[in-house]
Amino acid sequence: MSDKPTMDQLQALLSKSPFNRFCQAKIERIDYGNMELELRMPMRAEFERRPDSGQWHGGPIAALVDTAGDYAMALHVGALVPTINYRTDYLRPAINTDLIAIAKVRRAGRSVGVVDIDIFNEEGKLLAVGRGTYAGSAG
Amino acid sequence: MSDKPTMDQLQALLSKSPFNRFCQAKIERIDYGNMELELRMPMRAEFERRPDSGQWHGGPIAALVDTAGDYAMALHVGALVPTINYRTDYLRPAINTDLIAIAKVRRAGRSVGVVDIDIFNEEGKLLAVGRGTYAGSAG
Amino acid sequence: MSDKPTMDQLQALLSKSPFNRFCQAKIERIDYGNMELELRMPMRAEFERRPDSGQWHGGPIAALVDTAGDYAMALHVGALVPTINYRTDYLRPAINTDLIAIAKVRRAGRSVGVVDIDIFNEEGKLLAVGRGTYAGSAG
Amino acid sequence: MSDKPTMDQLQALLSKSPFNRFCQAKIERIDYGNMELELRMPMRAEFERRPDSGQWHGGPIAALVDTAGDYAMALHVGALVPTINYRTDYLRPAINTDLIAIAKVRRAGRSVGVVDIDIFNEEGKLLAVGRGTYAGSAG
Repeated sequence: MSDKPTMDQLQALLSKSPFNRFCQAKIERIDYGNMELELRMPMRAEFERRPDSGQWHGGPIAALVDTAGDYAMALHVGALVPTINYRTDYLRPAINTDLIAIAKVRRAGRSVGVVDIDIFNEEGKLLAVGRGTYAGSAG
Repeated sequence: MSDKPTMDQLQALLSKSPFNRFCQAKIERIDYGNMELELRMPMRAEFERRPDSGQWHGGPIAALVDTAGDYAMALHVGALVPTINYRTDYLRPAINTDLIAIAKVRRAGRSVGVVDIDIFNEEGKLLAVGRGTYAGSAG
Repeated sequence: MSDKPTMDQLQALLSKSPFNRFCQAKIERIDYGNMELELRMPMRAEFERRPDSGQWHGGPIAALVDTAGDYAMALHVGALVPTINYRTDYLRPAINTDLIAIAKVRRAGRSVGVVDIDIFNEEGKLLAVGRGTYAGSAG
Repeated sequence: MSDKPTMDQLQALLSKSPFNRFCQAKIERIDYGNMELELRMPMRAEFERRPDSGQWHGGPIAALVDTAGDYAMALHVGALVPTINYRTDYLRPAINTDLIAIAKVRRAGRSVGVVDIDIFNEEGKLLAVGRGTYAGSAG
């Protein structure tokens, strides 16, 4: 991949991963100026918490936090890097909605990078917040 | 559910959740004395990080952390409670292996509970560690 | 304290705490519209990491994260609430500078609240980021 | 420092730091077999949360988490390494007691290490738990 991957290149990389393909995650926007990336993920039956609830289980929400943070780091590094750790805080139930993740690199260093990931519903309501540490550009 | 759900009752509850059923998570052991619960989750093709790698994506690992912690809290509360937040640290790649989660309640209070979740491969090697906060018995 | 404490009331509360008084923490700004609070903390000899380095030890930085988050929650609750947990990420060394914390409530619920706390040096450079969960208005 | 610092060498290093000296932190035990370290920290007036409460403010507790984790990593690395991030969960109020930290390295890699830190009161009651990520042996 080039030093500054395009949105299409990142989407191609994303779609190669069986898990991300299953998640149908779609990169909607990248912004090199603000080191920001937007990722959208539709509901699917396998992600429901309780039958017929329309509510997302927390697991796929955390997975979206991880993936969005990782691809935001790719804006900095030019490649995917290992996740070191991340935290997910659940603020409101996610019901009958696609999830929209906005990931913003807060610090991109040589050894590690830190990314904030906000998860919204389709109406722009904040559902969850994530914060992750990833290997840096030398990692 | 009774105050002290049996392993079968917890498994029945788990299997009702579409996401957990998709994950094929199986409760292998509960231990009221130590407030501990063991959960096993097999690999499936949709959870692969990269094609033909046999490696778990971090997302399903985080999902297992969440679920194991939540069901360990159920030993204390007698019912499922909302996840407030959790952190997952990835220590080693998880390749060609079932995941075994051992969740231990560190503190079970009225307002919140804290659970540690260790994730092992089939050889007992530690792959990831999670720590979660859940609503407590009054939540 | 009233439902919406003034900056002076919050500062008086802060200064009553022996630890916060020792830290010489000063509330510089509160903003009810954005649920934001700014706290400033000067260096003192006891907070140095290594002799004659002028560098802050990470401990007092974490303490500032905790305090700033707690007082931001007080904007919502009208009183101080217990800290449940928080995470601190260190992004750059803090050397020869006051610390400025900007704490923003991301979600203020009845059972818990979540606050983001950014720590800057005097030049506005981001040094550390914190994220904390506190008891909510019913806590 | 040698590859495997002794307890005296680690204590000398600790006591050189103005902040740690102020905290009067004392290494009580090191255990290379289990990669474990025990650190004790007495109450002092400046650490009180509220006047005449005898209760520790959360800030110095977090500082102890950080320091204990860092010195446990020194067992692995043979030197102090930068803290990347850590989380502190407060389980019970710490009142009229020294704090005893037991830090255990869960994973010591080349790029990062992960340490669990449990904080007890003098009666062995668990008061807080920390989990930290530190730069590794190549950091």
